[in-house]
Amino acid sequence: MSVTDQSQTTSTTALNNRRWIYSTRPAAEVSVNNYRLEEQALDTELANNEVLIANRYISVDPYMRIQQSAKNNWEAPHPLNTLQQAGVVAQVVSSRSELFRPGDWVTAYTGWELFSKVHQNALLKLDPAMAPVTTALGVLGMPGRTAWFGFNDAGKPKPGDTVVVSGAAGAVGSLVVQFAKLAGCRVIGICGSNDKCDWLTKELGADAAINYREHSTTDALQSKLAEFSGVDIYFDNIGGWITDAVVPLINRRARIVICGQMSQYNGQLDQPELGPRLLHHMLYQRATIQGILARDFNHRMDEMVGQVAPWVADGSIKFEQTVVEGFENLPETLAGLLSSRNRGKVLVKVSEAV
Amino acid sequence: MSVTDQSQTTSTTALNNRRWIYSTRPAAEVSVNNYRLEEQALDTELANNEVLIANRYISVDPYMRIQQSAKNNWEAPHPLNTLQQAGVVAQVVSSRSELFRPGDWVTAYTGWELFSKVHQNALLKLDPAMAPVTTALGVLGMPGRTAWFGFNDAGKPKPGDTVVVSGAAGAVGSLVVQFAKLAGCRVIGICGSNDKCDWLTKELGADAAINYREHSTTDALQSKLAEFSGVDIYFDNIGGWITDAVVPLINRRARIVICGQMSQYNGQLDQPELGPRLLHHMLYQRATIQGILARDFNHRMDEMVGQVAPWVADGSIKFEQTVVEGFENLPETLAGLLSSRNRGKVLVKVSEAV
Repeated sequence: MSVTDQSQTTSTTALNNRRWIYSTRPAAEVSVNNYRLEEQALDTELANNEVLIANRYISVDPYMRIQQSAKNNWEAPHPLNTLQQAGVVAQVVSSRSELFRPGDWVTAYTGWELFSKVHQNALLKLDPAMAPVTTALGVLGMPGRTAWFGFNDAGKPKPGDTVVVSGAAGAVGSLVVQFAKLAGCRVIGICGSNDKCDWLTKELGADAAINYREHSTTDALQSKLAEFSGVDIYFDNIGGWITDAVVPLINRRARIVICGQMSQYNGQLDQPELGPRLLHHMLYQRATIQGILARDFNHRMDEMVGQVAPWVADGSIKFEQTVVEGFENLPETLAGLLSSRNRGKVLVKVSEAV
Repeated sequence: MSVTDQSQTTSTTALNNRRWIYSTRPAAEVSVNNYRLEEQALDTELANNEVLIANRYISVDPYMRIQQSAKNNWEAPHPLNTLQQAGVVAQVVSSRSELFRPGDWVTAYTGWELFSKVHQNALLKLDPAMAPVTTALGVLGMPGRTAWFGFNDAGKPKPGDTVVVSGAAGAVGSLVVQFAKLAGCRVIGICGSNDKCDWLTKELGADAAINYREHSTTDALQSKLAEFSGVDIYFDNIGGWITDAVVPLINRRARIVICGQMSQYNGQLDQPELGPRLLHHMLYQRATIQGILARDFNHRMDEMVGQVAPWVADGSIKFEQTVVEGFENLPETLAGLLSSRNRGKVLVKVSEAV
């Protein structure tokens, strides 16, 4: 039986799809009140080369909150009253593509919904034997790509460099910590709990970890960081007062990689917070600040996976996932991500594999 | 008569040297009160390979005020109770070097004094037939090097780029404006008077010039700048609220070159001013901020002079100098530089050529 035949057997039924619609712009913290849950009949008829997928794992990522800012970011803000866009890991339900068969594991960029119809060109097949399929949303997906190219291309590490990572226990930060150790750097992670500190130093190999809640002013955090005598690479996921503490400690020709500014996402992108001016430090140290986005390295995905997948397979790179159960929990899981409740990659399991 | 013989005939006399000693740290604006004028007998006896020079033109530069900050900058602060360091253009009085003869024009890094004894290796001979000797402190000296390499190496111009220059009528800024035009860019200069605006557009070829005193808030200046639809290169000499106006207007992959932060030199390097956070714009546009210092390109001086001197000779690059007369006016001229009273390169003539 051909794949096309299979798909045609399901082409006249309809599925009950559930979708989280982004409906109002959050003024500060995002919550379930900014979303509306819709139920929609999904006609399963497929166009040529189209595939129907059932989402199993749906991603929540900090960039989603950037896209909810009222101001343009890298593009126009996420439109209101449309499906919340997101990366997913899914299984093929039916297919009119010769490339995909029912049951295949795939990853795609669709959104917070149970089912999606996707052109074959927008699907990437996953091999569950190579790595857990969920890694396509983490270490072998967008966060991994961000960490790998952000750290290597923009960070330009050398053995012996001192690397400070903010948001070090997050999906990207926890990978940067490990990539930096593999590159022969000394690594100090900044995170928000003693448990995370222990994880960073005992499991991921960080040379030191600082709980910013125990050094909770710019001066206090800076004093603590100053024990490490200068920063060559600052990989910044957080921004705000934590970054204020790090910048005056940079070494000559330091590289500051702006990967995220999570401390600013709950309103301060629309109305910037005030902070101490810092550009003179760039002058003094002939240092560089570079902003990076995962999408800039889409075309180099193979390169990242080729490097990192063997390290995941042999345990050289550890990855941690926080899997929240239940489609209904997507909005609150995004909110929790932004208040850094979890460690590693956070995703939501929305249906059972078949 | 050999050069050595010549020097020996003057080796037992003493000259009355006058020196401006940097004596107290300014809390805000620098003034003559931060200096002490010393008269000192200078024994004219020379060591082997040493040269006695009479300074004719002495430089005042914004970086001098950075060095007076109480905090380390690219090195420790300028020591108190020592000669104010500075670049000079001088003539040789006597010499025990085979490389230099009395009357030769030279440039050196000595300080605010009438005479200096300098090892031959720390002197660069000038050819008055090639360009006015004062250009060694301007377009063919440190400011020229800063403008050339800062713009080209850090700015990475392409034809068609929109370039915004703050401090555009200054020694460095006025060269960046012209280098950018030669590179095929569209150039908008920001400066502090309508006279300077006219000079930038009518003499130096800027496509537009904005008097920030007529658009004197961040929002007003930003609205004016927004007419030019995005910034590819921002060459920043000023910082502060002017930079706040420019940064949100950067284009994808913009390059921000931090050459100076003059608005912050009168105290805010010690106690940073607050300003709106801006690092999220780096993320959105995958832009770069890079700090540069003239000294990083010392070893490429030949390259700059080889490129720029012919342009100076044929008038493709215009340079303007404000020459203040009188050694006694050095401290006040530095103060005036920081309140941007002048245009082009500012220097002080301290003695007559022979």
